[in-house]
Amino acid sequence: MSMMIDKALIEAENARRQSDLVQDYDALGARLARRGVDIEALTARAMGFGVAVPSWGTGTGGTRFARFPGEGEPRGIMDKLDDCGVIHQLTATTPRVSLHIPWDKADPSDLRAKAEEVGLGFDAMNSNTFQDQPDQAHSYKFGSLSHTDAATRQQAVEHNLECIEIGQQIGSKALTVWIGDGSNFPGQTSLSRQFDRYLESMKAIYAGLPDDWRIFSEHKIYEPAFYSTVVQDWGTSLMTAQELGPKAQCLVDLGHHAPNVNIEMIVSRLIRAGKLGGFHFNDSKYGDDDLDSGTIDPFRLFLVFNELVELEDTPGLDLAHMIDQSHNVTDPIESLMISACEIQRAFVQASLVDRVALEGFRQGNDALMAAATLREAFRTDVEPILAMARVRAGGAADPISAYRASGYRAKIAAERPRAAAGGGGIV
Amino acid sequence: MSMMIDKALIEAENARRQSDLVQDYDALGARLARRGVDIEALTARAMGFGVAVPSWGTGTGGTRFARFPGEGEPRGIMDKLDDCGVIHQLTATTPRVSLHIPWDKADPSDLRAKAEEVGLGFDAMNSNTFQDQPDQAHSYKFGSLSHTDAATRQQAVEHNLECIEIGQQIGSKALTVWIGDGSNFPGQTSLSRQFDRYLESMKAIYAGLPDDWRIFSEHKIYEPAFYSTVVQDWGTSLMTAQELGPKAQCLVDLGHHAPNVNIEMIVSRLIRAGKLGGFHFNDSKYGDDDLDSGTIDPFRLFLVFNELVELEDTPGLDLAHMIDQSHNVTDPIESLMISACEIQRAFVQASLVDRVALEGFRQGNDALMAAATLREAFRTDVEPILAMARVRAGGAADPISAYRASGYRAKIAAERPRAAAGGGGIV
Amino acid sequence: MSMMIDKALIEAENARRQSDLVQDYDALGARLARRGVDIEALTARAMGFGVAVPSWGTGTGGTRFARFPGEGEPRGIMDKLDDCGVIHQLTATTPRVSLHIPWDKADPSDLRAKAEEVGLGFDAMNSNTFQDQPDQAHSYKFGSLSHTDAATRQQAVEHNLECIEIGQQIGSKALTVWIGDGSNFPGQTSLSRQFDRYLESMKAIYAGLPDDWRIFSEHKIYEPAFYSTVVQDWGTSLMTAQELGPKAQCLVDLGHHAPNVNIEMIVSRLIRAGKLGGFHFNDSKYGDDDLDSGTIDPFRLFLVFNELVELEDTPGLDLAHMIDQSHNVTDPIESLMISACEIQRAFVQASLVDRVALEGFRQGNDALMAAATLREAFRTDVEPILAMARVRAGGAADPISAYRASGYRAKIAAERPRAAAGGGGIV
Amino acid sequence: MSMMIDKALIEAENARRQSDLVQDYDALGARLARRGVDIEALTARAMGFGVAVPSWGTGTGGTRFARFPGEGEPRGIMDKLDDCGVIHQLTATTPRVSLHIPWDKADPSDLRAKAEEVGLGFDAMNSNTFQDQPDQAHSYKFGSLSHTDAATRQQAVEHNLECIEIGQQIGSKALTVWIGDGSNFPGQTSLSRQFDRYLESMKAIYAGLPDDWRIFSEHKIYEPAFYSTVVQDWGTSLMTAQELGPKAQCLVDLGHHAPNVNIEMIVSRLIRAGKLGGFHFNDSKYGDDDLDSGTIDPFRLFLVFNELVELEDTPGLDLAHMIDQSHNVTDPIESLMISACEIQRAFVQASLVDRVALEGFRQGNDALMAAATLREAFRTDVEPILAMARVRAGGAADPISAYRASGYRAKIAAERPRAAAGGGGIV
Repeated sequence: MSMMIDKALIEAENARRQSDLVQDYDALGARLARRGVDIEALTARAMGFGVAVPSWGTGTGGTRFARFPGEGEPRGIMDKLDDCGVIHQLTATTPRVSLHIPWDKADPSDLRAKAEEVGLGFDAMNSNTFQDQPDQAHSYKFGSLSHTDAATRQQAVEHNLECIEIGQQIGSKALTVWIGDGSNFPGQTSLSRQFDRYLESMKAIYAGLPDDWRIFSEHKIYEPAFYSTVVQDWGTSLMTAQELGPKAQCLVDLGHHAPNVNIEMIVSRLIRAGKLGGFHFNDSKYGDDDLDSGTIDPFRLFLVFNELVELEDTPGLDLAHMIDQSHNVTDPIESLMISACEIQRAFVQASLVDRVALEGFRQGNDALMAAATLREAFRTDVEPILAMARVRAGGAADPISAYRASGYRAKIAAERPRAAAGGGGIV
Repeated sequence: MSMMIDKALIEAENARRQSDLVQDYDALGARLARRGVDIEALTARAMGFGVAVPSWGTGTGGTRFARFPGEGEPRGIMDKLDDCGVIHQLTATTPRVSLHIPWDKADPSDLRAKAEEVGLGFDAMNSNTFQDQPDQAHSYKFGSLSHTDAATRQQAVEHNLECIEIGQQIGSKALTVWIGDGSNFPGQTSLSRQFDRYLESMKAIYAGLPDDWRIFSEHKIYEPAFYSTVVQDWGTSLMTAQELGPKAQCLVDLGHHAPNVNIEMIVSRLIRAGKLGGFHFNDSKYGDDDLDSGTIDPFRLFLVFNELVELEDTPGLDLAHMIDQSHNVTDPIESLMISACEIQRAFVQASLVDRVALEGFRQGNDALMAAATLREAFRTDVEPILAMARVRAGGAADPISAYRASGYRAKIAAERPRAAAGGGGIV
Repeated sequence: MSMMIDKALIEAENARRQSDLVQDYDALGARLARRGVDIEALTARAMGFGVAVPSWGTGTGGTRFARFPGEGEPRGIMDKLDDCGVIHQLTATTPRVSLHIPWDKADPSDLRAKAEEVGLGFDAMNSNTFQDQPDQAHSYKFGSLSHTDAATRQQAVEHNLECIEIGQQIGSKALTVWIGDGSNFPGQTSLSRQFDRYLESMKAIYAGLPDDWRIFSEHKIYEPAFYSTVVQDWGTSLMTAQELGPKAQCLVDLGHHAPNVNIEMIVSRLIRAGKLGGFHFNDSKYGDDDLDSGTIDPFRLFLVFNELVELEDTPGLDLAHMIDQSHNVTDPIESLMISACEIQRAFVQASLVDRVALEGFRQGNDALMAAATLREAFRTDVEPILAMARVRAGGAADPISAYRASGYRAKIAAERPRAAAGGGGIV
Repeated sequence: MSMMIDKALIEAENARRQSDLVQDYDALGARLARRGVDIEALTARAMGFGVAVPSWGTGTGGTRFARFPGEGEPRGIMDKLDDCGVIHQLTATTPRVSLHIPWDKADPSDLRAKAEEVGLGFDAMNSNTFQDQPDQAHSYKFGSLSHTDAATRQQAVEHNLECIEIGQQIGSKALTVWIGDGSNFPGQTSLSRQFDRYLESMKAIYAGLPDDWRIFSEHKIYEPAFYSTVVQDWGTSLMTAQELGPKAQCLVDLGHHAPNVNIEMIVSRLIRAGKLGGFHFNDSKYGDDDLDSGTIDPFRLFLVFNELVELEDTPGLDLAHMIDQSHNVTDPIESLMISACEIQRAFVQASLVDRVALEGFRQGNDALMAAATLREAFRTDVEPILAMARVRAGGAADPISAYRASGYRAKIAAERPRAAAGGGGIV
């Protein structure tokens, strides 16, 4: 029995909004036309945009202090795919799911069947060597791909190869490697030799990568390691990708940088190096807060997309857009929908920057007008474009409203036994 | 059967080191004498110094990603007290334990008996309203003392009052209140009204505080809340303590500040305001890393103690020194011993600053020599003083070495069943 | 001869835009009406809003590395007032100027006459004890109000009293005190006694404050002092204002905080303490970058105004809004106009938050919808409201465009000899 | 007439300290011998260590707010070389000077003669395209090597080529390129094309580099540009050095990083990439504070040297150690002496790490003992080794004391007219 939301409900919700939407869309279209911008071209771009959702994002997240699960928490990957299906059904902008192994291990044919049922494809695979599994021979307490012990490294390599194997069976084309390896104290590890070991392991994984696959190296400044992290920044990520070869690229998570860092510059640099592979979108104020995209500093998200649009014709550029968030105080399905829409919004806003005017101001060192040109695009309320794109693609004009009207959460709460509170709780 | 380490073993370990220790102590004494410093006075100060250990620090900590428990993890408060007893036995500088409720709930007479057995007293009580307990009527998912719901606030107030009650029965004289309340998104809460509710709750707790007790307000910039935290910095903590009354003071955790913040200035300001109550010692490089004290930036720890020593004659100053750390990759007992010794080291180094010379340089705006005066004290290797202080007090010249020689960890590993790996694991 | 821009030019510029403006205004009005918001009420609020410009902001700023002056740099306070007059003429939202003494010293009657000529009033006075003046008896190299030398402190106190005296003659009602006092090295100063001296000096200034004046204490984490700063954060600023008395309040400069700090929380706390006096608006990405308001993180500016609007009915709240920026690569007049408009924009956006809905979501812990409510207001493009408010008040629909059309910069460039390129020394 | 300090004075100062020094040296030697460390080997290493001083560091620095010059400020490069001569005479560890062009332009034969007179050689040359010079055709207000205007870029390239030419005539072998190019506002520049232009210019400079020269690319996160900087971090610096070729390497300034960044990891990574060229040493707490080396976080300086010593046998590693500081509140000569000694101290401390034991602990994942091994080396007071190394090399046991006894500052104050107090503009 499908968990999908009744199409009639979505249509009814949209119908209620149709008149207002058309009015707003037309008013915006007229205003954009005056600027020489064709609203239909923007709407088409919006409809062509997609971002993958993380399977693990459908469950309530937590901190080391506590986790407060909600009702209807997914019991496994099939529940998660149901939830992701609803997200895409309503937003029409999340056509793929990114899996995390071993959390999402299942029979590949079951995965494919379920994905087909809910209208989704599979994005990059994610390996997990930052946790110990019950049946594991060697512990990752002191590292995985960069562990001092060769057998532990080998175990971690094999796990990544298994992720590739699973991915091949479900149509994925990429592996994202993020590890927690590092150290908590100066001296604990040799910063140089630990990196050597990491590279050696990554080369072994790379050797097992199919020809049409890519491997993404994801950096992070800290956490869970609190003094050093093997792949601490984009510089180390770049060195890794360079050493591995053409199928290796860097993945940028918006929350994995030092304070004050200009992320859009990193985006620009990695594109020039031919090594930008994709993103883990989220937002943050302090550390790797994993908050909903665009909710803390929406202008920063816009500036990232401004680079992507400015450089979108770069030969070979092929980006994997993914969300990676932790939802602690919201319904995860709602947060993922909101986030997907905010990411799409930033893309559309960046798409309406007057790039001819901008370049003119830059050449003339008219800093004020160049900056004003970006801001004008940013402050344009493109919500009517996003809503119209959703409606035309069969989604909901207002995804949150339609979702709440559908009673989906109550329905899954009834079907999925309440998970025990737990996890975290370590001060 | 006592878990304490055999005194004969400690004495034997010390005897092996005695000749070297005396040689180093005498050489240092001679060098200090040339500077006009009496080494015996410093050793006496070292022996008079104490810092409380956190009961929860004896277990292996974790991050939101994973927890990797070690062998011999304490099964409950009685095991924790055994471990704390060993820490004090070897370092002779941790005479008190700080309990966390409900984690450490037990029959008060049993607690007192066990503490007496292992030679410890009880320091400040810690309440826990950042986690839900299985039997709890109202969830703290959206806050505790500052929750929008009055019943939830009342439940949190009552929990704190219960902590006081337990504390009274075991001889504690203070309650530390740290809450995770805040918000993850701009708009989620009213920043002003949430603080009002927090103050109202704190007043209710304050009203239940015995006359000879103190209540400590502990601030933290973020985590587990990622956009705003009710008591986000020392300014809000100060406002809280001012509003509550004379028995309310502020507690400074070294890892709870924004990047780059000058912590010793906060120490100085709170002392002037008559509101410094004590510390949660630890060290950090990025966020609230909760690493071992003095292992990341030992000069910062020294500078904090430099303020404390400079202002130690301030009327009414009565500080509760506590450790608050999370030990993820070390034997927690060893980390607590090392940390206690590093804290004591900073105290002794700060005690040998030539304050007359320093003040002269300050009055003359001789910035270079003033700074050099501090550094000279900091770089003096006072290890012989610390070791001598331990030996004279019945502790170990080298606590780690004696601990390892004792086989204590293997012994408790044999007696305490291995805890299941778990906790954390939420990306 | 007045330097003001010809009204006919402004009217012609506005006339060219009138039709588009009315169309956009009406479309926005219709959309807001659907949300239950009266656009006219917002326009009235926009017209009632004002922010003071800093006299020193009209000159090109600089860094410690270099200063690149532009054409037509103001030669003195009279030129600066001309420039400020133009800013207010075109934006209709900067009715007052804030002076800096001794930079802006002049005969008070001349100041009043010039201000009247250009249609401006005077906001808070600013003292300067972070630089030495040629004729100065005691140097501020090692501090001013907190110097170890009593005569130097007295000189600094007297300078502040002189600022009050000048201010009284020109109709100012407040004194802003920002000092660079602090230290560059641990040990250089006694953190506690330096603060004591600062407070003593501030009390002497406070004693000379007229009954209807206020004194603003402005904190800053660092620069020009690089290890400690006497008034390093809002906590110390609060202690200062509390110790001085009811006429003392705190001033918040948006660029004077540690990385990641939540500024809107500070705003909220200071309002509760009855101690928020006003702002120095600007924007920053790294340190005290003094960039144009709203150009780096416009959502942050909005969140500050969200607090101000939420708490605007707080009894006694009376805020001095001022801009404090350094314009290194733009025409300073243009930057000040843009900044004033961005500040006004944030105020209007914050004014259209649906506060009833917001409060409902907060009470129900609907974090997602509460956050979405704020974002909906933020992403509403209120430019038509701002433009209409300007036009109705006699300003320019598009201030930058009108300014450029007026040829004002070329005109003053011809009249004011080009300043020599030179060192920094600009706030 | 030589400005050098009378050797007899130095010898007399050393003689007064000789007995204490020998006593301390012998006591330390005995203690180290017990650890299996030969103090003479360490002293030999200390004597072999050298760090270059910056010519510009001999003058009093400043901030954008003010500059407070001292007495005897150098009037030009010849005065600066005198001052640097004294620094090396007393510390015996600063055998080379780094020049800044055009500040230090002079007849090369005069430079060589003066350097020979004061016993110094020349280290890397520094170009200056962050300031405009009076006679300059094109302004650097909007950039230099990355300017949108080709003629401006060409001018900047030619300036760098001139620096090489001057350097060749005085025996320098490297050019350090640091530029302030970037932007103050999002949109002001194309982040990608600005970098392209920078690389194009750098290639033109590289083409003019003699075979036995190196070019150092120096990154900095911000200042003077406050939104983006072309070479913002080590990743971009690495890309630059990779694109230029084998003679291009990266220079690490300790104050040019984002908050919390682990600098020793960058050191380790650049060594692996074969691209670490050298350092600009200084210390900082907030931004690019340019404070005296080792005065804010001495353990961080030690950790940098720990990497350098651990990797010192890396083939091809050839590091240019330079100081780059701004001295605002001290006698610059004293600050440079103190800093050179602190850098040397960190090198010696790092040299006495028990690397065999350390590696054993690392292999065994004994994080606690590995960290303790580093700390034991750090807390060893190696002052007797440093003092002995100086005395044996003809320097002063206590450089500050000898310098003050010499009356050098008073002597130059009498000969050099007092500079006018003035604006910033000092690196």
